[in-house]
Amino acid sequence: MANGLANNKLPNWRFFVEWSSESLGIIHGIKKIIFSGRSKYQEVDIVETYTYGKCLFLDGKLQSSIFDEWIYHEALVQPAMVTHPNPKRVLIIGGGEGATLREVLRHNTVEYVEMVDIDEEVVNLCKKYLPEFHKGSFDDPRAKLIIGDGRDYISSKKEEYDVVIIDVTDPLKEGPSRLLYTKEFYELVHQALKDDGIMVTQATSVFYTTDVFATIYNTVRSVFSITHAYHTWVPSFNSPWGFVIGSKVYDPLNLKEEEVANRLCERGVEDKLRFYDAKMHRALFALPLSIRKVVEKEKRISTDRNPVFVIYI
Amino acid sequence: MANGLANNKLPNWRFFVEWSSESLGIIHGIKKIIFSGRSKYQEVDIVETYTYGKCLFLDGKLQSSIFDEWIYHEALVQPAMVTHPNPKRVLIIGGGEGATLREVLRHNTVEYVEMVDIDEEVVNLCKKYLPEFHKGSFDDPRAKLIIGDGRDYISSKKEEYDVVIIDVTDPLKEGPSRLLYTKEFYELVHQALKDDGIMVTQATSVFYTTDVFATIYNTVRSVFSITHAYHTWVPSFNSPWGFVIGSKVYDPLNLKEEEVANRLCERGVEDKLRFYDAKMHRALFALPLSIRKVVEKEKRISTDRNPVFVIYI
Amino acid sequence: MANGLANNKLPNWRFFVEWSSESLGIIHGIKKIIFSGRSKYQEVDIVETYTYGKCLFLDGKLQSSIFDEWIYHEALVQPAMVTHPNPKRVLIIGGGEGATLREVLRHNTVEYVEMVDIDEEVVNLCKKYLPEFHKGSFDDPRAKLIIGDGRDYISSKKEEYDVVIIDVTDPLKEGPSRLLYTKEFYELVHQALKDDGIMVTQATSVFYTTDVFATIYNTVRSVFSITHAYHTWVPSFNSPWGFVIGSKVYDPLNLKEEEVANRLCERGVEDKLRFYDAKMHRALFALPLSIRKVVEKEKRISTDRNPVFVIYI
Amino acid sequence: MANGLANNKLPNWRFFVEWSSESLGIIHGIKKIIFSGRSKYQEVDIVETYTYGKCLFLDGKLQSSIFDEWIYHEALVQPAMVTHPNPKRVLIIGGGEGATLREVLRHNTVEYVEMVDIDEEVVNLCKKYLPEFHKGSFDDPRAKLIIGDGRDYISSKKEEYDVVIIDVTDPLKEGPSRLLYTKEFYELVHQALKDDGIMVTQATSVFYTTDVFATIYNTVRSVFSITHAYHTWVPSFNSPWGFVIGSKVYDPLNLKEEEVANRLCERGVEDKLRFYDAKMHRALFALPLSIRKVVEKEKRISTDRNPVFVIYI
Repeated sequence: MANGLANNKLPNWRFFVEWSSESLGIIHGIKKIIFSGRSKYQEVDIVETYTYGKCLFLDGKLQSSIFDEWIYHEALVQPAMVTHPNPKRVLIIGGGEGATLREVLRHNTVEYVEMVDIDEEVVNLCKKYLPEFHKGSFDDPRAKLIIGDGRDYISSKKEEYDVVIIDVTDPLKEGPSRLLYTKEFYELVHQALKDDGIMVTQATSVFYTTDVFATIYNTVRSVFSITHAYHTWVPSFNSPWGFVIGSKVYDPLNLKEEEVANRLCERGVEDKLRFYDAKMHRALFALPLSIRKVVEKEKRISTDRNPVFVIYI
Repeated sequence: MANGLANNKLPNWRFFVEWSSESLGIIHGIKKIIFSGRSKYQEVDIVETYTYGKCLFLDGKLQSSIFDEWIYHEALVQPAMVTHPNPKRVLIIGGGEGATLREVLRHNTVEYVEMVDIDEEVVNLCKKYLPEFHKGSFDDPRAKLIIGDGRDYISSKKEEYDVVIIDVTDPLKEGPSRLLYTKEFYELVHQALKDDGIMVTQATSVFYTTDVFATIYNTVRSVFSITHAYHTWVPSFNSPWGFVIGSKVYDPLNLKEEEVANRLCERGVEDKLRFYDAKMHRALFALPLSIRKVVEKEKRISTDRNPVFVIYI
Repeated sequence: MANGLANNKLPNWRFFVEWSSESLGIIHGIKKIIFSGRSKYQEVDIVETYTYGKCLFLDGKLQSSIFDEWIYHEALVQPAMVTHPNPKRVLIIGGGEGATLREVLRHNTVEYVEMVDIDEEVVNLCKKYLPEFHKGSFDDPRAKLIIGDGRDYISSKKEEYDVVIIDVTDPLKEGPSRLLYTKEFYELVHQALKDDGIMVTQATSVFYTTDVFATIYNTVRSVFSITHAYHTWVPSFNSPWGFVIGSKVYDPLNLKEEEVANRLCERGVEDKLRFYDAKMHRALFALPLSIRKVVEKEKRISTDRNPVFVIYI
Repeated sequence: MANGLANNKLPNWRFFVEWSSESLGIIHGIKKIIFSGRSKYQEVDIVETYTYGKCLFLDGKLQSSIFDEWIYHEALVQPAMVTHPNPKRVLIIGGGEGATLREVLRHNTVEYVEMVDIDEEVVNLCKKYLPEFHKGSFDDPRAKLIIGDGRDYISSKKEEYDVVIIDVTDPLKEGPSRLLYTKEFYELVHQALKDDGIMVTQATSVFYTTDVFATIYNTVRSVFSITHAYHTWVPSFNSPWGFVIGSKVYDPLNLKEEEVANRLCERGVEDKLRFYDAKMHRALFALPLSIRKVVEKEKRISTDRNPVFVIYI
């Protein structure tokens, strides 16, 4: 053993770099490595970064940080849940950390939530190491966890759910979520929803993959009668992030600020949120002009034969 | 000479890292170094990055990139300009790249714009190397460039301007912009504005320095009767960015979407914008709940004796 | 969960940076984190790097890599062992990985080796995760492991050892090895050695901390009648590395090439080495002119009251 | 302009990373960019790093630093020059910085040195910005600079030189130095040397490209009757570096230490060197056992049809 320690204050030596391209990346100084290994499906790292605190990385991509996971998860879940006047039965596809589940369970109208995730090891690691994310949601008697393929699961369901929330990794050419953004998939979702059901999906970076975001919007629109794209910034993702709502009856833009406030209050949600409230509801749907133009012009529909996917590099 | 080149495709070797803290940074691969040196006031780098294209760095901090400078500059300039029914005389404090000037000159109501910047070398470098940013604005007959201290300059002005735009570096303990965010300074701005004048200032990161953002809001509010904080995301800043408007008469939230669209159209601005339009106007003012709570609770007022400043590390 | 994987080939995202100063560092892409945690004394990382393979880091400093640990350990152990005509009893101070022990045990003259290391957790982690380093040496019946303070241990020994090998971290102002490079310590070593005993210590970077290297040489010389500094390069340390031999009777420079070869052969060592042999023996002691000048001029002696230490930054 | 400076002490933001592979690199903090651009042949950066001072990078590879260029250049030039009893006419192929020229001119036996380099812009940049490297050697009346292809130049020469020194970039598949390491090239060198002439070439990293080093040795040996490989460490190259001497009559290993000292003294070189002297001469030729085994077993000869080249990644 040779070498040694530079000075009393140790400089950082453990770093994760999240590459957006081969010439743009975010450097995270790592305070502590809590878990690092490989599941059946992916590389998994649960670490404590100096700036964002506890984080989950899958295949080297930051999935969520304790610093701002509430922005992502409230933005994903709350607009759709609030838009439905009485959501009782909810299905989550993906959602490993349990934070999406947490947001759904906040609504006291909810009687039953199923969460279908393919990676049992990741779910178990999150249960063990990320209690601040799921806050015990997996133990809620209304929650049921199913380990399995989300698309297989939903294909046998008919008019069963009020809300379906799709919280999976970005579509990649060879990735497991490849066929969870296609027209055929959204038709299965449509079929699994009740007559007045509503769905929402994360829809990749608004800025770095605008064309994918626009294609997802256009694909949902080819299946649902009411469709809206919206977005918010998530600092640890280093980008404004996109979402798409597809709805059979209810339109989120028809809700007045007062009505949003009432629903949050009546359902016991109001005091639990940190990002979303009645004042934010409508603003989420305002896209910057340049993005709106791309979304409006998009003609492409993602299909099983020709699915859209993200190419970072 | 020894060593050599690894393979046909050269890997990146030139990098800039913009540190947000000593354990969080953005890595930019640099394609070309256009200028690198020191002015009287600061370190200046004009470089072409692979992802964001041409960029200006001052003291190692990214000021603007061709990729998204229009987001920052439209968000800074347009809401205040549009809120004023007939802006003729405008003062810009700072604004080295000339892009703020460009945004002001788009309004055909404008008869006269003064831009006061302290660093002549930076302005000359921007004139020479960043034509895509200023787009020839310095040659517009309505524009007048003054090299000097912005606070000194404004202190002799009375009821002269319709709009004052403050586009300077963040307040730092020892930095040159330290006294351009205090109550005393805003009183000078108030005095330099006409009876129905309006001012706007950039107001640091909404997320990483929320307390500074909130203090700037509160300080402007101590001087102006109508005050609003707003924000947008700027990808290359790696954060949502804040702004504060102070106004004597006109309230940006009283403008209807239709009125914004009319003004942009009548003044010949509409077709030139990429980020801001009538649909975005109101959404800019919707702050996330957690930020709004901090802003509402802030009691601190920044003063010359006890100025607010940013501490990144 | 959002985000995802860039392309089929994952880019590196886990990195360790070993800083030599705040503006010079080695970046190691990390393939696998085998262990990461904190012992009673230090931060411990056992990782697999892409280029150097399995590595041990203590407090962020690379201690040894499977790629070239044999250079360091042969260079530390073999010259002193070979210089002694019949080494039977050997003491190792430090040597956590067990590779120094391995090198000593290769000499069939050896009857008994004690290894005293202060950090039991590190030794146990090395036993478990670094079998390629120790190659089962801890199980050799001639080896005895003592967990404890090396200086305390040696202070009670008198004329007991043929060879003492000091394999500890660099001397740092506040580090645990601070008093293992002083005149008082070398006097204890001298006392613990038999009448014809010989000692050797690692002596920091020849190039980046030449003054420390020279001071260690000068301090050993103040205690032993025969003293020699030598060095070799260790790629993963990013520097030529120094060592100092102190001897009571035998001079390594008096050994002819043939004699070195004979001893290695007779003792069954020859076929097991990868770096050191008779042809290398003398060359190790040839220091570059510039380093030799510093060593020759050094007057400083490290003492318990005023110990030498390394300042990297 | 937004953003700003973190604290009084600016953190580094300009970095060069010299990649040895895609998962190993050296990070250099850059204090000042003196020149950055592209010549007809390559990317050229002359920068001041914090740790190594002024440096020349070609295509992102560090060619030499003021911190240790003297190690490389003395090691390349002095053993061959000293081995020749009376070097009068010398040819350098490559050698852009002028430091190889400087080392040759130190010998007062030298009457005439030609230096042939292909990249005029690099030579001119070195003349202008690296005076500490060439120390005015280009102005020495004995020196003649030729801009041109080294292989073309030497092909017309017969028995003209006492010493030929080859100081070119590593052989790369598509690089300009590809055919400056082949048997056919060394035959041209042999022909250009006088009856008792001697040549030396840099021979890549001993450690990371041992096979290339060994092939160069074997190729020179196929042309010259006396051939020796040698090496030294160069800290800023992050590797021990290799060289190969080919000689018609004189053997560097037949020189006694005293004779080396005499020649350096008589020729007025002695006081000017920092790395090499009589004590170092022989040690340079001692290769580590593992390297020596590879060199001894190498059967490959590099030819124009099938040239050896370096693959880092």
